[in-house]
Amino acid sequence: MPTMDDDIALAHRLAAAAGEAIRPYFRAAFVQETKADSSAVTEADRAAEQAMRDILERERPEDGIVGEEFGSVREGASRQWVLDPIDGTQSFIAGRPIFGTLIGLMQQGWPLLGAIDQPIACERWIGATGRATLFNGAPAKTRRCKSIEGATVATTSPHCFSDDEADAYLRLLAAAYGKHPWPLYGGDCYNYALLASGHVDIVVETGLKLHDFAALVAVVEGAGGQMCDWRGDPLSATSDGRVIALGEPARLDDVLEVLHGH
Amino acid sequence: MPTMDDDIALAHRLAAAAGEAIRPYFRAAFVQETKADSSAVTEADRAAEQAMRDILERERPEDGIVGEEFGSVREGASRQWVLDPIDGTQSFIAGRPIFGTLIGLMQQGWPLLGAIDQPIACERWIGATGRATLFNGAPAKTRRCKSIEGATVATTSPHCFSDDEADAYLRLLAAAYGKHPWPLYGGDCYNYALLASGHVDIVVETGLKLHDFAALVAVVEGAGGQMCDWRGDPLSATSDGRVIALGEPARLDDVLEVLHGH
Repeated sequence: MPTMDDDIALAHRLAAAAGEAIRPYFRAAFVQETKADSSAVTEADRAAEQAMRDILERERPEDGIVGEEFGSVREGASRQWVLDPIDGTQSFIAGRPIFGTLIGLMQQGWPLLGAIDQPIACERWIGATGRATLFNGAPAKTRRCKSIEGATVATTSPHCFSDDEADAYLRLLAAAYGKHPWPLYGGDCYNYALLASGHVDIVVETGLKLHDFAALVAVVEGAGGQMCDWRGDPLSATSDGRVIALGEPARLDDVLEVLHGH
Repeated sequence: MPTMDDDIALAHRLAAAAGEAIRPYFRAAFVQETKADSSAVTEADRAAEQAMRDILERERPEDGIVGEEFGSVREGASRQWVLDPIDGTQSFIAGRPIFGTLIGLMQQGWPLLGAIDQPIACERWIGATGRATLFNGAPAKTRRCKSIEGATVATTSPHCFSDDEADAYLRLLAAAYGKHPWPLYGGDCYNYALLASGHVDIVVETGLKLHDFAALVAVVEGAGGQMCDWRGDPLSATSDGRVIALGEPARLDDVLEVLHGH
């Protein structure tokens, strides 16, 4: 049975391998036709996931793998590595260095370890249950937040929300910003990483897949924050994809109250 | 009378001075309370604009200056330096390296030269009338775009649009993405820089101030793109702040047709 230190060291190697696979594709399609960028991202996605799977097959032949590109193997294993080689496809395609490689380790369906790696800026957040989250080797800490009013809210795209969810989200914006909402859009996993480092207070999203959020939980919680679904329940392999991240766990009741309109 | 080469060299020095002033403030507030980030951005903004103004007062005592932070001097001068020390305040506050310092030079109210500088990633786009836009010294080129369908559209925030503008914008998204719009949000000036480098096809925004767009025009147009207002007219000091940027000028009529719904 590998120790937590072994798993953390392995997550670093996985992230490094993915980054090496991704970097040659970043901004590489600019001399080609429009559509070339979307195939570039597919190629980069696959190359990075394959690089990580090769390492896992060699070093953790008994663990399961859930990958965005190549699906699942050993689904019955109690330990599952959950991989999203490029989270933030649109940012990658557009040449923004705020996408990320996500590496999560789940045990019995619960997040145990997570890494968010930004391979262009060479930024890596890594968290594990019971450990302090590290950003490029130094402790990352969420910041305190005394009320929703004045909080910095981030979400990748307003188009993800259903009508009901959009109403809930707009209530949250009104509570945070008043009449002139100015939340942070775009960002994908990078929003959670910046929350872990104390620059963002609240991230609220829906429609996330397991590979989108598995890696985030340990990073955010090891930095002093909290992640849960829109009911306030902890995230697991069976969550419905509606996600809240808070830098300040004491604001959870306030956020749930605003989202649910009472 | 300074030559274009003199002005370009000066723009480089201005950008370098602003970057030096800004960098110490980036992500520096994370150990403080929530509100500290917004005062950090104000301090960074002012320090950077002051650094640029000091240079301009010394080297171009006859030119006007229009600055986001400290207002205007010599408003009657035919040459006006238009400065936005930190465009993308929300990104700066949240620790995203996709804000920018904008330096524009207008002559008789028309854009002559522009620089977009990202001081964390050390990326600089510089364009001038009749010159090829350079990205870190190498030519930047927009990409071709054969139709709006499939184009990559970017805008900083949907909250900027009035109801009518939002309708126009949603028509553009429908034309580009069909039923599942997935445009690029966030980004501010960085969207225009990435358009100049051939990674984004269309940027559509409203409510921009002169200091938000003055620097962008020469960067985009020197890379083969086009900028105009929502009527298709060239941008000048008297524009209304509704802005279109296109990597492919041949798409202008299509975009105007979709925005205006006929």
